[in-house]
Amino acid sequence: MNPPVIEKVAQKILSENDRIAAALRASFLQRHILCVNLISSPGSGKTLLLEKTLEAFPKTERVAVLTGDIQTDNDARRLARYGFPVRQITTAGACHLDARMIEKALADWDLSTIDTLFIENVGNLVCPTAYDLGEEAKIVLLSVTEGEDKPLKYPGIFFKSDLAIFTKIDLLPFVPFQLDEAHENARKIHPGIEMIDLSAHTGQGMDAWTQWLAARKAKRHSACA
Amino acid sequence: MNPPVIEKVAQKILSENDRIAAALRASFLQRHILCVNLISSPGSGKTLLLEKTLEAFPKTERVAVLTGDIQTDNDARRLARYGFPVRQITTAGACHLDARMIEKALADWDLSTIDTLFIENVGNLVCPTAYDLGEEAKIVLLSVTEGEDKPLKYPGIFFKSDLAIFTKIDLLPFVPFQLDEAHENARKIHPGIEMIDLSAHTGQGMDAWTQWLAARKAKRHSACA
Repeated sequence: MNPPVIEKVAQKILSENDRIAAALRASFLQRHILCVNLISSPGSGKTLLLEKTLEAFPKTERVAVLTGDIQTDNDARRLARYGFPVRQITTAGACHLDARMIEKALADWDLSTIDTLFIENVGNLVCPTAYDLGEEAKIVLLSVTEGEDKPLKYPGIFFKSDLAIFTKIDLLPFVPFQLDEAHENARKIHPGIEMIDLSAHTGQGMDAWTQWLAARKAKRHSACA
Repeated sequence: MNPPVIEKVAQKILSENDRIAAALRASFLQRHILCVNLISSPGSGKTLLLEKTLEAFPKTERVAVLTGDIQTDNDARRLARYGFPVRQITTAGACHLDARMIEKALADWDLSTIDTLFIENVGNLVCPTAYDLGEEAKIVLLSVTEGEDKPLKYPGIFFKSDLAIFTKIDLLPFVPFQLDEAHENARKIHPGIEMIDLSAHTGQGMDAWTQWLAARKAKRHSACA
């Protein structure tokens, strides 16, 4: 298998990614843009959360979305209905977004018109973890239809995320998921992780999420002042 | 990013994998072992399906399980309760199982004592698709708490799988999932794919699954006779 060669190439790819991500981060910082990178398994509710988030924003809000998928522009079409700029990144096989894809997708956008940039990563709880996209925060989503032990099984993404959102809590009465145990497992991996329990379907927990975003935006502005 | 170098290394890894997978396949064929490779997102119910499958088997059944995870041996502990040989493969970061991991895990097992080998892959709908493990069939699981458009968004695994199992159908009354649309999307990607709708929780559809396994085993024996 020749691991040294593989390792060397992997390091080269990641260091090139880190260089582009650092430039993106500097650009976001300079323009006071809050950029968050949403990561989860397929079907954990990233797109629905973004739909409900966009729906609730005043139309004057300066928000934009980049959404990644291996194939289809289904998500971009779902998200474009709310009147904010949305762009699909189709990775054509790649299991994650990388910084170059973000750089390319933003190349013809006027960043001075954006305050908040949501990046919806490819549905994958593993590979996107390794790719810095220049975001201020990674956010991991875990649906209550998955298992409580997921933070222990996929520690990388819980360790790297500032916020864990437990989604689909309206389904809690119908599934054996123990929310307390899931919280505890997330804290075992990342003691300082923030957590929100939420149902985009019923709206429960949406306030906590929009408050989290507002606090992060305020912090960003004060840090840059 | 230097794609030619990456591509060359990727080809080298995959061709090395294919060589080992071919040897595994020959070994399974020679011993009439039915080997299936279960692939899905994290939390789609691979482990619960295997638990219920093992529970229903007579103790005389010659069945074994290899279960892959990035971290923890939780799944092996869950599966070992049913009295059949189970071994955890912890990939320590890798987002998929590869043929060498299977070869290594089987090295000290007497394959002549096994008729059916279940491989539970790492929870990931993308990367495991590319790695042949010597299995007779890939099986993709999709939970009804995910979206109907997943076959279109993750076409690779639906194209390569002989069977798609739609899991957690007991939750259908509580989620907006359209089963017919999901079936149709799977057929768009892979017209000949077999499909089973199932709830490991209530037992609905489990008969169809055990019959599918029995038919595959019978076919394997007649092919080798």
